[in-house]
Amino acid sequence: MAKKPLILVTNDDGISAPGIRTLISVMNEIGDVVVVAPDSPQSAMGHAITINSTLQCHKIKIDDGPQQEYTCSGTPADCVKLGINEILNKKPDLCVSGINHGSNASINVIYSGTMSAAIEASVEGVPAIGFSLLDYSWKANFNPIKKIVKKITLKALKEGIPVRTALNVNFPNLNENEIKGIKICNQANTYWIEKFDKRINPQGREYYWLTGEFINNDESKESDEWALKNGYVSVVPVKHDLTNYEVISKIKSWNL
Amino acid sequence: MAKKPLILVTNDDGISAPGIRTLISVMNEIGDVVVVAPDSPQSAMGHAITINSTLQCHKIKIDDGPQQEYTCSGTPADCVKLGINEILNKKPDLCVSGINHGSNASINVIYSGTMSAAIEASVEGVPAIGFSLLDYSWKANFNPIKKIVKKITLKALKEGIPVRTALNVNFPNLNENEIKGIKICNQANTYWIEKFDKRINPQGREYYWLTGEFINNDESKESDEWALKNGYVSVVPVKHDLTNYEVISKIKSWNL
Repeated sequence: MAKKPLILVTNDDGISAPGIRTLISVMNEIGDVVVVAPDSPQSAMGHAITINSTLQCHKIKIDDGPQQEYTCSGTPADCVKLGINEILNKKPDLCVSGINHGSNASINVIYSGTMSAAIEASVEGVPAIGFSLLDYSWKANFNPIKKIVKKITLKALKEGIPVRTALNVNFPNLNENEIKGIKICNQANTYWIEKFDKRINPQGREYYWLTGEFINNDESKESDEWALKNGYVSVVPVKHDLTNYEVISKIKSWNL
Repeated sequence: MAKKPLILVTNDDGISAPGIRTLISVMNEIGDVVVVAPDSPQSAMGHAITINSTLQCHKIKIDDGPQQEYTCSGTPADCVKLGINEILNKKPDLCVSGINHGSNASINVIYSGTMSAAIEASVEGVPAIGFSLLDYSWKANFNPIKKIVKKITLKALKEGIPVRTALNVNFPNLNENEIKGIKICNQANTYWIEKFDKRINPQGREYYWLTGEFINNDESKESDEWALKNGYVSVVPVKHDLTNYEVISKIKSWNL
């Protein structure tokens, strides 16, 4: 029998979130699982890492299963660094992150702790996939998507994810029989219009809550937002080379 | 006389850092300056935003000059959102971030609070530039680069930065007469090998400090690391569409 793949599992909603518990159960069917995940919610942490403070990490047991689990005080990107370089002390065959409670499609990818963990793994040369379900609720139902999570993971292990690339997989919030299929997409061109809810605290000082309205003017059928709105699972290959190669010659023409 | 451009200034080292004070002084020569910057250091915060906590923001006066200044409890990306959508309540003509104490070239861009501020502005449709000097010291000497910061800013205002793009400008730590010129580059393909320094706290519990070794195997003369090592200021246009378009057809061939 072929050796089982070694799979590092992390997330940004915290180690006890239902989304990561589901992901662990699926990965236990595929390989040897080591979990290194934040001890508290780290949503919208982007690619933050902890350099001016210390990190705590210790072994715990959250529920039954063959997986080894570690909880970490840091960000999702910290968890991946610690997982690969200290806990495993070698590269796993795959890193999976999620399943996130809420969308990481389109522009949300740049704010996402879930995806920053996957991208960090790809920087370190480890194939990686981030999974997200379009339901922000803690009680989100992950059962309808378990089969597809497994299918994508097995395919990625077999085919190999291209180097310096991670997969950003988002699931529409639908029943299993309503999901139309899986679509390989590009990141939709979207943004948020922020609205700041200004309030006064009991000491009379102003403070703000960040809220926002999501704006999608991208009508392309190749985009992840289109796929999700039309009942498909979206898969976007993402890279960490941010260079906008298309405009280099234009900037060169400035003759700086 | 043409109307002066409205310039939003931020950073990740905090509003009192020498780097942003230098940047403000240069921008005061160019336009009307509004500063919205973190009240404490936010290095390596990546594209984190504050959604599970509140934000405080208030007007302050750090030093002389015509600029208006606001200090904010959030991350660099929060500062830009708050600056554009609440304090200015309109799009500025330009957003500049920095001058960072330390490199944001190559892979450092994805961890950088300085660059996440610039990228956030570009997401919101505001032309943006992040400036960084390759000297981590609080006492770094920013005088040798002031002229070039001004030159690049004026050129960007005149020519217009391409949409959905921000400029990542890094300066070698050299005297003015040692700087060879300005080079338009791509992001070098580099990574960090993390080393975790494990220690024991007074209560007997383990904790870690993240340290690392920077690895650059990219020998291309078009890369930012090459430019900086050879005495040039590097300018990389960066985008927030992370799609790796080159591998889409490959992933489609998996027939998921």
